[in-house]
Amino acid sequence: MSNSTKIVNVVTEYYRIPLPEQMGDAKHGIHTHFEVPIVRIILENGSEGIGYTYTGGIGGRAICNMIEYDLKPYLLGQDASCVEKLWEEMNWKIHYVGRGGIASFAISAIDIALWDLRAKKAGEPLWKLLGGANNSTKAYAGAIDLNFPMDKLLNNIQGYLDQGFRAVKIKLGQERLEEDIERVAAVRNLIGPDVVFMVDANMKWTIETAIKAAKLLEPYNLLWLEEPTIPEDYEGYRRISQEGGLAIAGGENLHTIYEFQNMISRGHLDFPQPDASNIGGITGWVKVAQLAYAHNLPVCTHGMQELHVSLMSAMSHAAYMEVHSFPIDKYTTRPLVLENGRAVAPDTPGTGVEFRWDLLQEFKTSF
Amino acid sequence: MSNSTKIVNVVTEYYRIPLPEQMGDAKHGIHTHFEVPIVRIILENGSEGIGYTYTGGIGGRAICNMIEYDLKPYLLGQDASCVEKLWEEMNWKIHYVGRGGIASFAISAIDIALWDLRAKKAGEPLWKLLGGANNSTKAYAGAIDLNFPMDKLLNNIQGYLDQGFRAVKIKLGQERLEEDIERVAAVRNLIGPDVVFMVDANMKWTIETAIKAAKLLEPYNLLWLEEPTIPEDYEGYRRISQEGGLAIAGGENLHTIYEFQNMISRGHLDFPQPDASNIGGITGWVKVAQLAYAHNLPVCTHGMQELHVSLMSAMSHAAYMEVHSFPIDKYTTRPLVLENGRAVAPDTPGTGVEFRWDLLQEFKTSF
Ligand SMILES: [Mg+2]
Ligand SMILES: [Mg+2]
Repeated sequence: MSNSTKIVNVVTEYYRIPLPEQMGDAKHGIHTHFEVPIVRIILENGSEGIGYTYTGGIGGRAICNMIEYDLKPYLLGQDASCVEKLWEEMNWKIHYVGRGGIASFAISAIDIALWDLRAKKAGEPLWKLLGGANNSTKAYAGAIDLNFPMDKLLNNIQGYLDQGFRAVKIKLGQERLEEDIERVAAVRNLIGPDVVFMVDANMKWTIETAIKAAKLLEPYNLLWLEEPTIPEDYEGYRRISQEGGLAIAGGENLHTIYEFQNMISRGHLDFPQPDASNIGGITGWVKVAQLAYAHNLPVCTHGMQELHVSLMSAMSHAAYMEVHSFPIDKYTTRPLVLENGRAVAPDTPGTGVEFRWDLLQEFKTSF
Repeated sequence: MSNSTKIVNVVTEYYRIPLPEQMGDAKHGIHTHFEVPIVRIILENGSEGIGYTYTGGIGGRAICNMIEYDLKPYLLGQDASCVEKLWEEMNWKIHYVGRGGIASFAISAIDIALWDLRAKKAGEPLWKLLGGANNSTKAYAGAIDLNFPMDKLLNNIQGYLDQGFRAVKIKLGQERLEEDIERVAAVRNLIGPDVVFMVDANMKWTIETAIKAAKLLEPYNLLWLEEPTIPEDYEGYRRISQEGGLAIAGGENLHTIYEFQNMISRGHLDFPQPDASNIGGITGWVKVAQLAYAHNLPVCTHGMQELHVSLMSAMSHAAYMEVHSFPIDKYTTRPLVLENGRAVAPDTPGTGVEFRWDLLQEFKTSF
């Protein structure tokens, strides 16, 4: 059999999966589905890499079409081993219609497949290949729970504690700020003083409201306030940090390296949260992790815990990994492994994310 | 017949049109096609608005799929009269996968169709509806000519002068900077001292090279140096302006209002060039034009001259409209009208852009 790592095929599949219940946050409204575009990259030597991305129900077909019509023609015939070169050239290939948005999701799915191939070829799990600082990471659980009534909110948090989580997050951004504060007080009362607690406003607030909220939240010992306002307002993030007094997290809506660079150097982030499904895959995630390192900041994540567990474990400066509430664990062969509140990375060569095609099949959709 | 302006259908079409010859610039490589996604919005009262966007051959299918699957379901049943409301809600609807890139192109096509409807309902041409400062605008011609040998470059520029243009632009970014300077010197020698002359580096340079180039270009009396480096490097643009000494233009790769805001306030632009085909349509273009006004800057454009002629004519602070070399004039009922070096806006109600469907038909492609 050939030893060649030349790319001979790129197969894109689109899965549209209903959520078990409707989930809501402050700015994205109600979610009813999530989408999983999946890419298989096949090499001349017969090996196959699997990559994927997610959306909250919107954009999946555009992502698949960009992969199929704009990126696949470039990838065919390339050497899959030169992952960072391919990442750079893909970004420039689609630059005029790219630079974030759909392009970042499309490149992410491809890049993850390339890393799957790279790690399989090396015979190593990602957590080792990327540095091996550890084989597990601190983790926290959070739902898209803005629309949960108080009793359901508290039951849900209790469920996380029962599963073994030692850190939890809730959504803020109710119509009345007082209601947000009441929910935070009730959760802190439930979890006690030792469980780590974060909050997430999903960009809902003006700067003035965010500063007021940060001050009102001060008594509840929060690890961070996430996305208080829109991700383009660098000066706003700086003011919220300086005048509000809470640590600030964000990153799920920063989809290029430059957005992180500008937010970190001109705005303010204490906890950068790149997401490999929308920052350009593992290559993009590592670039942001290195940017954080150079700024003396820890690295965190958003979503995609089944893959991020390996990236976070690898890093010496990892803080907390988000365990997101999209039910991806139902469709992989290895659901989240939690030990002493830490998420444990898989030891299998490759990304360690293997899908249960039998269960996914019914959600496969044409694009 | 009903008077209702409720949207009852949104029809998307995808045209992929070969270019008569290959065109190259410094960072996008060789262009062989351009793409025109076209959107028809049909109202309950029977009226129809036509909107569209462009690409340089990449991303068209992703744009069409985003319109069809992510935006059309939201638009159906909405009141087409509330254009700015729909613009805002479309942006938030696709925010997580949006914020520039494909999303801005998709929203542009829809927004232009909504403005076509608004202007037709008002019975007015766009240049009046948007302010009516004038019914014509200063304009310049430029090709994607980086790959043209010197004699072809000069013949092409002479062709523009023969057509009546009084302002021209060429591409820079050759392997040797000295060759760029030789080409600029030859063009200035050809056109004489009175024709307005701009250059465009299409993001090719580092900051250090851009500053060196700007200093070498100083003797040739250029109106502006366009896109010397990547559009995310705000500090870089500021340094190139301050240390290089030339006026700076850019905007074709700024696809959100916030990118313009950050570039103008933190970076540097003397000539902002929003493009209604990628900044969110006419609504997005006007927001940037107003931002420029508030910063005491003129407004310019990139591409799409058959529509921009009406937007630029409307504005009291318009500088120069680009007349791009994609051969769109072959496919509309009203090719560019030039009088005394100025482009004249159409007087027909609506956008004034009417396609020749008979000629487009052969390039219609499924998506
Ligand atoms: Mg969040
Ligand atoms: Mg240009």
